[in-house]
Amino acid sequence: MATQTAGTYAAVGVDVDANDRLIPRYRQSAARARRSEQLDNIGGFGGLFDISALSQYRQPVLASSTDGVGTKVIVASLASWEAKGQKGEAEDRFAGVGHDLVNHCVNDILAVGAEPLFFVDYLASNGVSEDQKSKIVDGVASACQENGMALIGGETADMPDLYMNGYFDLAGTIVGVLEKDRQITGQRIRPGDCVLGLPSSGLHTNGYSLAREVLELRGRDPNDEVYHTECAARLQERPWGSTGPSLADALLEPHKAYWKELGPHLAMIKGMAHITGGGVQGNIERILPSDVTVALEPSLWQELWEIPPIFDLIQERGKVSNQEMYRVFNMGIGMAFMASPRDAEELLDLLPSAARLGEVIPATGALGGTCRVSGIDA
Amino acid sequence: MATQTAGTYAAVGVDVDANDRLIPRYRQSAARARRSEQLDNIGGFGGLFDISALSQYRQPVLASSTDGVGTKVIVASLASWEAKGQKGEAEDRFAGVGHDLVNHCVNDILAVGAEPLFFVDYLASNGVSEDQKSKIVDGVASACQENGMALIGGETADMPDLYMNGYFDLAGTIVGVLEKDRQITGQRIRPGDCVLGLPSSGLHTNGYSLAREVLELRGRDPNDEVYHTECAARLQERPWGSTGPSLADALLEPHKAYWKELGPHLAMIKGMAHITGGGVQGNIERILPSDVTVALEPSLWQELWEIPPIFDLIQERGKVSNQEMYRVFNMGIGMAFMASPRDAEELLDLLPSAARLGEVIPATGALGGTCRVSGIDA
Repeated sequence: MATQTAGTYAAVGVDVDANDRLIPRYRQSAARARRSEQLDNIGGFGGLFDISALSQYRQPVLASSTDGVGTKVIVASLASWEAKGQKGEAEDRFAGVGHDLVNHCVNDILAVGAEPLFFVDYLASNGVSEDQKSKIVDGVASACQENGMALIGGETADMPDLYMNGYFDLAGTIVGVLEKDRQITGQRIRPGDCVLGLPSSGLHTNGYSLAREVLELRGRDPNDEVYHTECAARLQERPWGSTGPSLADALLEPHKAYWKELGPHLAMIKGMAHITGGGVQGNIERILPSDVTVALEPSLWQELWEIPPIFDLIQERGKVSNQEMYRVFNMGIGMAFMASPRDAEELLDLLPSAARLGEVIPATGALGGTCRVSGIDA
Repeated sequence: MATQTAGTYAAVGVDVDANDRLIPRYRQSAARARRSEQLDNIGGFGGLFDISALSQYRQPVLASSTDGVGTKVIVASLASWEAKGQKGEAEDRFAGVGHDLVNHCVNDILAVGAEPLFFVDYLASNGVSEDQKSKIVDGVASACQENGMALIGGETADMPDLYMNGYFDLAGTIVGVLEKDRQITGQRIRPGDCVLGLPSSGLHTNGYSLAREVLELRGRDPNDEVYHTECAARLQERPWGSTGPSLADALLEPHKAYWKELGPHLAMIKGMAHITGGGVQGNIERILPSDVTVALEPSLWQELWEIPPIFDLIQERGKVSNQEMYRVFNMGIGMAFMASPRDAEELLDLLPSAARLGEVIPATGALGGTCRVSGIDA
């Protein structure tokens, strides 16, 4: 119990002045991620975006998605523990999760065919330094800028007692736009269509609780200093040899966004699945009509892409079944999309990193609307 | 450290099946909070809202804000501990924070003059039951419905290790719309204008870390069962006598939304401040031009309104200074707004619960753009 009452907000871990000091730093980051449709908002109670200026859309429909980065935030905090005293490195770990957050959301609305317009972020933390907070928001702003999107607002909350000291959660919301009659639904997918994909950069933002368990990055007691030191040491290991990345590097590789690659070619795409929580089959099944089945052939993409070795490491160390791996992780696939055979040929020409993943076949019996991976699903 | 590897996602606290079971319950809640502009989105990767159908706006500008409910979520979790075994009550505590979240966001964009359109929520938790999660989202949906808004999406994340067992964080994002030339900025506020206000229902969603400290609802060790039991008992106390509310009731009274009351009268309002983090003066100062000062006279609203007694209790128990109280809490004021003397008279007629808070005077010296409370600020 509290042994004395403090009587001021700062004494309980909410430093209003510190947060006020951060506002100009956030604004400086956000200034890089602007669009001409943004309007000044003097009081700052809400960000403003002039949708009437988007004259290229005849019937604009807004697409919105909200997400977090899962317990990848814990890995970032543990890795910053590792980098303590090595100025700069810790903060770069924090910038990465800003990219994760934005890129994840960009892909979510890309899956329905939407152009990203603006973003707002929510950062809740306890005992995270001003530099670290500033770096997280700077990562968010950089990723917004890379995707041609405005960062129009955000909330930073000090949450003593809810988060452990030095930890944070990060969530955000994207708003994008699409032409009403150009929504990508998956409902025109027919037998004979091709399934293509673009490679992921690593785990992206899903499966981290299982990854941390398997890689011994979970503690019984989060207040245990020894636990942090041990985890930090483990994250510095280089499981792929001295010239390979550290475990921290492999786990914290940011989520890739696919808007720039796929945005110009949406007219050729019949359906698109962002491979996130729920894994490969689970996400593809979200967009399939009930009269088709998708048959994936892993050798098709595994021979063409360099699959990040983190997947094999997790499977080996955790003795995780193939089935569970495909249900939890993206297995090297960032986005999957379906097109007619002719459009698929053109897309493969236009997108050097794209690969064929499999094909759409007529559904038989209970397999309607399902996705089967050769060698994985019985 | 983990002593064995589990190899499945459910074993580490992420139950994909449990979350899948919740989807129909979330959908049922969200079905109450719909608008005609919503479009079906089959894959569910992003919520869709047909902005082109909003034909009443000549030049629509979107207003967006993101927020959480602060450490009020901790009070809700502690109060649900109190209510363990008393079926229903615990879940109602959780529905309340859903209202808090939405109503806070509604007021944020109302402050620039925006009509609420749609909402997305982010619920991150550890060891929170399916019923509790469902109740939180149901609270979000009810509040959306009450404000004429669609709940078009959300994310539920299991975050083992980041949150303590039984705890959660809740954030959300609102998108609303206003006519481009009707933005409420505060910049037309002139000396002689009146400052009016509408009453808050309690602490709303700010100052909970200080309130918990003062009311001995903070623990040194969050894993301590004794702490939970003690806090739960304290929340059942009735500091205002046996017929008054419990401490839990007083602390968990939901944030009020002011859109319904103020929405029809926005044309008469020159500036509006949502009294949240930063307190009374801090939020009013966000919208003041530099050549005016606002002078508030507490007796004006304290004589007219029944100020929730929670403020006095916190001040007494914590020996908190008047200055700090006004800097952290809303002190009974939910929204403050400025109007010309003639419009102010009309607004007071139209809004029975509104009160005069003070007046706008010419700025002298360093007091330009500031808000002074009589008897509080030197």
